[in-house]
Amino acid sequence: MIIVMRAGASLPQIDGVREHVERFGVRSHVARDGFRTIIACLGESDALTESSVATLPAVESVTRWRTPYRLASRQLASHGATTVVRIGDGAGASVGGPALAVIAGPCSVEGREMLLETARGVGRAGAGALRGGAFKPRTSPYAFQGLGLDALRWLAEVRRETGLPVVTEALDPRQVELVAEHVDVLQVGARNMQNFPLLAEVGRIRRPVLLKRGLSATVTELLLAAEYVLARGNPDVILCERGIRTFESATRNTLDIAAIPVLRGETHLPVIVDPSHAGGRADLVAPLAYAAIAAGADGLIVEVHPRPATALSDGDQSLSLAGFRELMRGLAPFATAAGRTLASPPVGREAAA
Amino acid sequence: MIIVMRAGASLPQIDGVREHVERFGVRSHVARDGFRTIIACLGESDALTESSVATLPAVESVTRWRTPYRLASRQLASHGATTVVRIGDGAGASVGGPALAVIAGPCSVEGREMLLETARGVGRAGAGALRGGAFKPRTSPYAFQGLGLDALRWLAEVRRETGLPVVTEALDPRQVELVAEHVDVLQVGARNMQNFPLLAEVGRIRRPVLLKRGLSATVTELLLAAEYVLARGNPDVILCERGIRTFESATRNTLDIAAIPVLRGETHLPVIVDPSHAGGRADLVAPLAYAAIAAGADGLIVEVHPRPATALSDGDQSLSLAGFRELMRGLAPFATAAGRTLASPPVGREAAA
Amino acid sequence: MIIVMRAGASLPQIDGVREHVERFGVRSHVARDGFRTIIACLGESDALTESSVATLPAVESVTRWRTPYRLASRQLASHGATTVVRIGDGAGASVGGPALAVIAGPCSVEGREMLLETARGVGRAGAGALRGGAFKPRTSPYAFQGLGLDALRWLAEVRRETGLPVVTEALDPRQVELVAEHVDVLQVGARNMQNFPLLAEVGRIRRPVLLKRGLSATVTELLLAAEYVLARGNPDVILCERGIRTFESATRNTLDIAAIPVLRGETHLPVIVDPSHAGGRADLVAPLAYAAIAAGADGLIVEVHPRPATALSDGDQSLSLAGFRELMRGLAPFATAAGRTLASPPVGREAAA
Amino acid sequence: MIIVMRAGASLPQIDGVREHVERFGVRSHVARDGFRTIIACLGESDALTESSVATLPAVESVTRWRTPYRLASRQLASHGATTVVRIGDGAGASVGGPALAVIAGPCSVEGREMLLETARGVGRAGAGALRGGAFKPRTSPYAFQGLGLDALRWLAEVRRETGLPVVTEALDPRQVELVAEHVDVLQVGARNMQNFPLLAEVGRIRRPVLLKRGLSATVTELLLAAEYVLARGNPDVILCERGIRTFESATRNTLDIAAIPVLRGETHLPVIVDPSHAGGRADLVAPLAYAAIAAGADGLIVEVHPRPATALSDGDQSLSLAGFRELMRGLAPFATAAGRTLASPPVGREAAA
Repeated sequence: MIIVMRAGASLPQIDGVREHVERFGVRSHVARDGFRTIIACLGESDALTESSVATLPAVESVTRWRTPYRLASRQLASHGATTVVRIGDGAGASVGGPALAVIAGPCSVEGREMLLETARGVGRAGAGALRGGAFKPRTSPYAFQGLGLDALRWLAEVRRETGLPVVTEALDPRQVELVAEHVDVLQVGARNMQNFPLLAEVGRIRRPVLLKRGLSATVTELLLAAEYVLARGNPDVILCERGIRTFESATRNTLDIAAIPVLRGETHLPVIVDPSHAGGRADLVAPLAYAAIAAGADGLIVEVHPRPATALSDGDQSLSLAGFRELMRGLAPFATAAGRTLASPPVGREAAA
Repeated sequence: MIIVMRAGASLPQIDGVREHVERFGVRSHVARDGFRTIIACLGESDALTESSVATLPAVESVTRWRTPYRLASRQLASHGATTVVRIGDGAGASVGGPALAVIAGPCSVEGREMLLETARGVGRAGAGALRGGAFKPRTSPYAFQGLGLDALRWLAEVRRETGLPVVTEALDPRQVELVAEHVDVLQVGARNMQNFPLLAEVGRIRRPVLLKRGLSATVTELLLAAEYVLARGNPDVILCERGIRTFESATRNTLDIAAIPVLRGETHLPVIVDPSHAGGRADLVAPLAYAAIAAGADGLIVEVHPRPATALSDGDQSLSLAGFRELMRGLAPFATAAGRTLASPPVGREAAA
Repeated sequence: MIIVMRAGASLPQIDGVREHVERFGVRSHVARDGFRTIIACLGESDALTESSVATLPAVESVTRWRTPYRLASRQLASHGATTVVRIGDGAGASVGGPALAVIAGPCSVEGREMLLETARGVGRAGAGALRGGAFKPRTSPYAFQGLGLDALRWLAEVRRETGLPVVTEALDPRQVELVAEHVDVLQVGARNMQNFPLLAEVGRIRRPVLLKRGLSATVTELLLAAEYVLARGNPDVILCERGIRTFESATRNTLDIAAIPVLRGETHLPVIVDPSHAGGRADLVAPLAYAAIAAGADGLIVEVHPRPATALSDGDQSLSLAGFRELMRGLAPFATAAGRTLASPPVGREAAA
Repeated sequence: MIIVMRAGASLPQIDGVREHVERFGVRSHVARDGFRTIIACLGESDALTESSVATLPAVESVTRWRTPYRLASRQLASHGATTVVRIGDGAGASVGGPALAVIAGPCSVEGREMLLETARGVGRAGAGALRGGAFKPRTSPYAFQGLGLDALRWLAEVRRETGLPVVTEALDPRQVELVAEHVDVLQVGARNMQNFPLLAEVGRIRRPVLLKRGLSATVTELLLAAEYVLARGNPDVILCERGIRTFESATRNTLDIAAIPVLRGETHLPVIVDPSHAGGRADLVAPLAYAAIAAGADGLIVEVHPRPATALSDGDQSLSLAGFRELMRGLAPFATAAGRTLASPPVGREAAA
């Protein structure tokens, strides 16, 4: 149930409504958009009728949920605008605004030097944030699992040196706090999209969450996973389409390009695309990236490695630094066509650092 | 096997090679690209060795097939260029060249007047060809199956009146000749992609074929279906990605956007996209169309109906004429970003008609 | 709309109802089950109301369709029983009755002798019918396409010599009559499940049709394809589950075992299973066959080749004659557990021939 | 690498081999089967050659891995036999032996009384273990999430009272120890099949693990997930096929029946089937259960609720107690046909308790 209060509703009136609904075992969540207050009711009760709410003082309207997600729904957003999620302190680092957000970096952090080299390279080429895996979810227990705490420290150091905000994946609810101390954005990977204890933990922190769509998750399930994070109090969720599993074997996954406009219609949360995992081939990154921006995505997350041939993981789909610069040059006209801008390189920040 | 002859190979030398391979039950197909002659061998024989061919006079190189398709392979195309398929006699009507081809019109031809109205509307907005179904493959035997011969005649009349080339689907090998007499391009629909007798028939005619990818066909299977047409002697095949079947139910099908660059790498045949069937929703046509062009497609086929709400089939995914004009306006900057042009409206032709 | 007439309704009363509904452009189809007459109305008309029918003389009840298929629906079958489709003249040759129907033979007919050898072998082991491909739908135009008319003649000869009814696939609407002259059952293959001109042709003949589910067809679409055949007047349709296309690559297709009980609930048509194409591996044929019978299937169609290693097509999934005998021995206790019998070998018939 | 030592190899010889391989950064794992010792090497090193191992004292053979999983591979199992996983202390409670294991109970534990009622009912009907969810992974944050610790306690109490071993799901690595104190088998659910921290935790405990296949996981990925558990030292893993996600919507998931014989060939771990989640419909449980046993499954896990219509979760797919008794009666002949037995009801144990 979404309850819209009249403009000018007083705090006691708002509290009155909340007390009423909570008597039915329903939690309430208050959102304000400058002139209106909206109360989102979480949990359902057949005993709580619309009419019992509609007659309370200062209630303008009462709407039953049309969708199973609520906080993620575009219905709730002020004026229907896309939420802008700020990452880090930099000027260019936000997702969902007019500037496209491009997050780039290696699949795995393999060392301090390679990370710094990559960060400088992608930053100069126009990336707004650095990605790099410290803990890697690998299908086989015998594959490289990431460098863990060392990698986290290097990410934090490279952030200080370059001014680029950093993104890394958290796999384990017990790691969330530690990871949040070192990086700007916590990624929840595709395999963990329905890892509910992990979603609950990232819902409690004060860091944006990059939530990747599961390999066989529907758009609705992705939004319900986001809802887990939002319902815990963390409003900063960035959704990421990264390909779904189908019968087609020419590509690693099948990029569901239509998910971008579908999500745009359903939710106020920003949506980015991972063309590296979607296609699984370096030569497909650019066309998929251009298509994503044309379809309305708010940004990209791209695997870049200084020497892809020697990468410890995902080398086949990584761009070189030169390949990334070419991608960014090729992206510019599509960004313009889509009415978006590309953030300018954070030269000032690195110079200042 | 692909045999490349030396520049200056004589006709008797070329015939000598063909006689040699045909002795092994292998058919040969000759292609020339100005300076070289290439002999493609169709059918396989273990007894026919590479070395027995390599030592014949004027043979430059012998390559075993790396891919199961041969005539469709980019290897065989002169200089690797994309084949330009001309449709009709109009200047703007070709697929695979620098200008994007936009084919638009109703799912089903419902009458002469609505067809003419649609043709004029889409032509003025920049469509290069008119689509319209005369024979409709419908999942249920009780659904509207198309107006058949009447619809074919109206298509031919509207072509004469507007100068727009017309595209329609053939379902039955026995219809192919009749359909080819009335229209410029024969469509083989997704459900018929592996209807081999139909592929053989459209391979014998002198009309371009628009071959749609099957709902669960891989990219390789699509190319092998094209190979059936090419192997019968019809070189003018246009491939069409129109969405594949997956678990996601937010859209009618899942547009496999990566198929465009994958096909571009594998084949010299031009590739267009059908955003109407892919998404199944009118509101998704524009973002999917923009994404298709950004990913490198050579054109679009779009369902347009003067009054979508009353369409006899596929109304949910049809654009109105106003919606189509808006699509074309929105498309222009993406075409430019992709280094392509949009054909100008065929005003002169209609004026002249 | 299904109209049930009262017991004792006269012919003029029945005709009166038919004339009424046909005035609305709706075709009527009459079925009798001994004591009641049922009129199935094909085609829809909003103008034809239930109440206008219910008040006609001798009408007992009027039911709007709950499902998109009608003639295939279990609703229409007398007493809800499964339709028994008789194939050939032999005693053991029927599908849908208490005895399981096992159809066995080579993927392709490769010659008269191998066909006769296979027929004798599978017949002795308990098969009720012989399968063998004369026209093969092959993904590649360069693969073996079948021996055509020669193969048809050998099938007819082997039928005469062994008494086993024969099943073969028809690919082309123009072949249907010819094929029907030579064999007992016409198969419509998975790739042709929505080849509507072919469905229409097999709907006109007096031979049972074995309709295979398409690689990405839903159960509902399979029933609608059967409806095309039934609506043309051929009541003898056998459905065949043969695996669907999914992401799993350990098997050629994924046998949708649940389709058997789902179809059993939805339709009165008998259902068999093809474990050879479903798994694509000879070692999986037996466990999938046992599972199919346990789930309620009415029979099996199995690929058997005297020398699988040298088969021209599908050797990997073919059983040898010894393998088939072992399958039949293993099947017996599962048939008993499922309350079914296995037909005894048609010894008498061959002896008599 | 699998190293088989000669019969009679001494401990110092075995240790010599282990020291050798560990010098290359490769961990070794020793298995004995009465007369031979097998050393499985975990982790890969190109520098560690087969010949350097083959020449060590008492080494009989050295085999490079043919499959990405090692401990789960049938290659490693003594004599190729299926591993029998014992659950609880009861005589009938083991999975992988000649007796089929049937685990039954409610989706969620809703209270002490309903749990005891269900346990008694399913125990009398022949179930070998009780299932019941304490922590529920739910797609929506607003759905019922389980009763947690209370439910765990009731499970432990009901176990004491009835003698039935109990199975429940653990969602969170932090819960694993607590859950293991209360129940006999820890389930890792489909959504957590690639939750690697959770797999690591259940790999450290001394309780059998029931590992469900992910909704879009391949058979290989399932075996690699099992490998995570085995590699941590827990040898008691039971695999569970519970349906995969496909385009078909007539059932909740598509039971991949072929996965049973495929797994049987690949691994020595026992395999059970969940017909309740696979079909999502109570009326499909019996046919899918019979098919599973016919295909070679070692057991079943079935949802049973005393009053399905009022179940807090998954009511549509739950059997009533009467329905479960009917399932077990129907199962008996299929168990016999498959050469298996059904455990007799644990009457003695409850009487003794």
